[in-house]
Amino acid sequence: MWLRTSCELNFVIDMPTPFILMLRPRSGAQQWISSEEYLLYPSVPAFEFTDDYGNLCQRLVAPVGDFTVYTSAKIMTADYVDRDPGGMFVDVQSLPDSVLKYLLPSRYCESDRFGDMATEIVAGQLPGYDQVEKIERWLYQNISFIPGSSSVPLSAAEVNIQQSGVCRDLAHLGVALCRSLSIPARFVVGYLHGLEPMELHAWFEAYVAGRWYIFDATQSFKKGGYVSIGYGRDAADVAVYNQFGPAVYPVQQKVCVDSV
Amino acid sequence: MWLRTSCELNFVIDMPTPFILMLRPRSGAQQWISSEEYLLYPSVPAFEFTDDYGNLCQRLVAPVGDFTVYTSAKIMTADYVDRDPGGMFVDVQSLPDSVLKYLLPSRYCESDRFGDMATEIVAGQLPGYDQVEKIERWLYQNISFIPGSSSVPLSAAEVNIQQSGVCRDLAHLGVALCRSLSIPARFVVGYLHGLEPMELHAWFEAYVAGRWYIFDATQSFKKGGYVSIGYGRDAADVAVYNQFGPAVYPVQQKVCVDSV
Amino acid sequence: MWLRTSCELNFVIDMPTPFILMLRPRSGAQQWISSEEYLLYPSVPAFEFTDDYGNLCQRLVAPVGDFTVYTSAKIMTADYVDRDPGGMFVDVQSLPDSVLKYLLPSRYCESDRFGDMATEIVAGQLPGYDQVEKIERWLYQNISFIPGSSSVPLSAAEVNIQQSGVCRDLAHLGVALCRSLSIPARFVVGYLHGLEPMELHAWFEAYVAGRWYIFDATQSFKKGGYVSIGYGRDAADVAVYNQFGPAVYPVQQKVCVDSV
Amino acid sequence: MWLRTSCELNFVIDMPTPFILMLRPRSGAQQWISSEEYLLYPSVPAFEFTDDYGNLCQRLVAPVGDFTVYTSAKIMTADYVDRDPGGMFVDVQSLPDSVLKYLLPSRYCESDRFGDMATEIVAGQLPGYDQVEKIERWLYQNISFIPGSSSVPLSAAEVNIQQSGVCRDLAHLGVALCRSLSIPARFVVGYLHGLEPMELHAWFEAYVAGRWYIFDATQSFKKGGYVSIGYGRDAADVAVYNQFGPAVYPVQQKVCVDSV
Repeated sequence: MWLRTSCELNFVIDMPTPFILMLRPRSGAQQWISSEEYLLYPSVPAFEFTDDYGNLCQRLVAPVGDFTVYTSAKIMTADYVDRDPGGMFVDVQSLPDSVLKYLLPSRYCESDRFGDMATEIVAGQLPGYDQVEKIERWLYQNISFIPGSSSVPLSAAEVNIQQSGVCRDLAHLGVALCRSLSIPARFVVGYLHGLEPMELHAWFEAYVAGRWYIFDATQSFKKGGYVSIGYGRDAADVAVYNQFGPAVYPVQQKVCVDSV
Repeated sequence: MWLRTSCELNFVIDMPTPFILMLRPRSGAQQWISSEEYLLYPSVPAFEFTDDYGNLCQRLVAPVGDFTVYTSAKIMTADYVDRDPGGMFVDVQSLPDSVLKYLLPSRYCESDRFGDMATEIVAGQLPGYDQVEKIERWLYQNISFIPGSSSVPLSAAEVNIQQSGVCRDLAHLGVALCRSLSIPARFVVGYLHGLEPMELHAWFEAYVAGRWYIFDATQSFKKGGYVSIGYGRDAADVAVYNQFGPAVYPVQQKVCVDSV
Repeated sequence: MWLRTSCELNFVIDMPTPFILMLRPRSGAQQWISSEEYLLYPSVPAFEFTDDYGNLCQRLVAPVGDFTVYTSAKIMTADYVDRDPGGMFVDVQSLPDSVLKYLLPSRYCESDRFGDMATEIVAGQLPGYDQVEKIERWLYQNISFIPGSSSVPLSAAEVNIQQSGVCRDLAHLGVALCRSLSIPARFVVGYLHGLEPMELHAWFEAYVAGRWYIFDATQSFKKGGYVSIGYGRDAADVAVYNQFGPAVYPVQQKVCVDSV
Repeated sequence: MWLRTSCELNFVIDMPTPFILMLRPRSGAQQWISSEEYLLYPSVPAFEFTDDYGNLCQRLVAPVGDFTVYTSAKIMTADYVDRDPGGMFVDVQSLPDSVLKYLLPSRYCESDRFGDMATEIVAGQLPGYDQVEKIERWLYQNISFIPGSSSVPLSAAEVNIQQSGVCRDLAHLGVALCRSLSIPARFVVGYLHGLEPMELHAWFEAYVAGRWYIFDATQSFKKGGYVSIGYGRDAADVAVYNQFGPAVYPVQQKVCVDSV
């Protein structure tokens, strides 16, 4: 399906503030960016670089006063995300080098502490895709998805205690559970068509049967309409903005996703 | 200045043909892409990757029949390119690791064969920026710039014998002369506002005084309006399209650059 | 000074177990490896790759039974680590792209939670080197260094509560404090000549005045003799071995560092 | 087989001269470095980096006077190189991104000029491994291998005219022929056990059936004992030393390969 996405961030800046933004989706295996806009009001010099996860990041210093970042894109993405029941677990020794980093614990995914729990959840499942789908279902049934319930990222361990969370929280726990089974998993920030209420979304991907598959424990059934903005080990790697110095929060964040 | 650029390539394809395109300019130190379009007619799956020079490349298989690639962008670029008379030569041992590859000979820049000639051209110049500017002037005065005079890339040595060439040819010779003096130099493909006749353009950059500077031996004086699409060691690295299998040429290639 | 280092790990393996080892120090700005040995008993196929932090990593599957990894090296390293009192803080917008990742929170360094504490510790110090040296001194005076006191990595927040720790713990807290002041900091695993008791060591580096400097809160005064094996954001990135499947611990780990 | 390799380069330096050396073999899919030595006489500061092809390179400034670089290694390598008759050609669109650069023409491999010749040589062969083996045989039978016959690198086109050459020349022509058939090919510098006379060797690898295979048109039959030092698109990328400023040549270059 063809989607038009947009994200507008409005800040009020008290002192010149360095930002690293991650708001330019890249064409990849699962999406094609056919057009794109990236506007800064007021206009300031901005520099782009590619991070270790392949994300395009924009560096700039926000000037004092109102500061707005507006990005939009027209994107082709899948109507239904791929599934692969029975898809095989890939032995650690057979994983591509570039995937190995998604096996290790990270800031919000203490996978080193979830081995027993994950083993229990996936009991009886075929190693690989089916295990991850079981984890996704378990999350859907056991961790309440409550949009807007938290603003500070929690770690997987904290989410597990709290038994509820925002999309980011469910993704963190999903990632941690997969990694504890030696299944590479990564955290994704992006857009989802039809999300209610509409805002930026987070989900996770797991590497089985030789490629990455999308999983999303916030949704009752697998559909399509996903547009990824950034990949990383967890939310610490893929903030849509990082800002340095005294904290600044957007006074408004407006996200739209429409089919075209 | 704000520019709107576009490039349309029309092909007639006889058999399914793999292409690697390089037609998505990146925001960088010298340009900001505020909006961008990338259209394929008919629409086919396309995958993007980043090459060793930081360029965004698009892979696809062109289907049989008419096939059109249309890209456009709105870009902020400098009104006048930076100059730095007296800018210092950087000792090889002080160059960043990532710049070293631009010192070596490459497909179309046999810098290992130009040491004496370059030394003669730059006699009396301060090592660094002034040497490169002297090379640029020497090229302007000695190698006739004849747009459309060749379609197959020539090497620097061939250009030097022929004493004339297209923009690509002058850039290759410029790169080879710089490298033979241990000045890193790279080849750039892109757009130039006001070029006559309008088409894709090529120039070169040299690394002096700690950064890259633009040089263009096809122009009588330094102005701005440059938009780079791709960087590389020479034209072999930055073809706007590479195609595999029996040769296919665009039946039409239409380039526009307007100020907005 | 010239050092000979060695590290021997002995495992007893119950089932074939994939390992990622990080035991081949690299020649770098601060050390030159003049000779090196890397032995596996029994010999098994091993494959090497470079991770996102530039570390050389070795992949292999440990066979059932006794399994020994022995590495040694002869290395030239500095007699005294560089100091730079007054070395300037580098504005975030001026940092090299490759350094930015060392500003963000990571698994064991929740720098997003240490802003106030860091500000208090460095009160009155010139931004940059002096702040980091103050943090190093503060750690030395306030967090008891107790070798062997823990085997599981703690996070900076946990170390701060516990007020004591092993070298890794002090380094984590040092990294978190630096990052909370927008000073890039990275975690280092390696050898230190003269360490008592001799074992693998951990310290941290901070990026000020345009380069990385070594800091080590476990030592009463700055001397030399450091040999780094791996760099990362924290201990999660630079385990000398990661192992997948049921946990396996070395039955013996023997580390030697001698001057030659 | 286990091999001990060594390479000693002796220079007489007239003025301080920057060098980039490439003399530290890396452990990889086809070889394991169990021990290694890298000595400089006199000792000078040296810095190591990884280039775009994954090679470890050493930067240093050679001081005035006698200057010696001595490297040796103990290496496990295959007794017989792998063969794969019938191994399939990989469609361009299915190649890994990282392999694509080995399809393009390069300094000494003008693959854009060899399409007809390659097609003729491989007539009747199954696309893939068999084509490359045919090219290897054709080279062996048609281009005389004359060790020591040239010191300046020739391009594939020049070798083809001359109908003879050193190992480097045959490898360049092999690479160019493969690439002209859309088979990725790379140039390798290294050691070969049993080579007569013993010196540094060059061969090529082609990517078929999902991996790289060794080919060597200087040898009458496929055996093992290969140790690669560096990979690249051609000899311009993998000089064991590049030196900047007035040319300096080794007064002596001594290479040994012994089985142990």
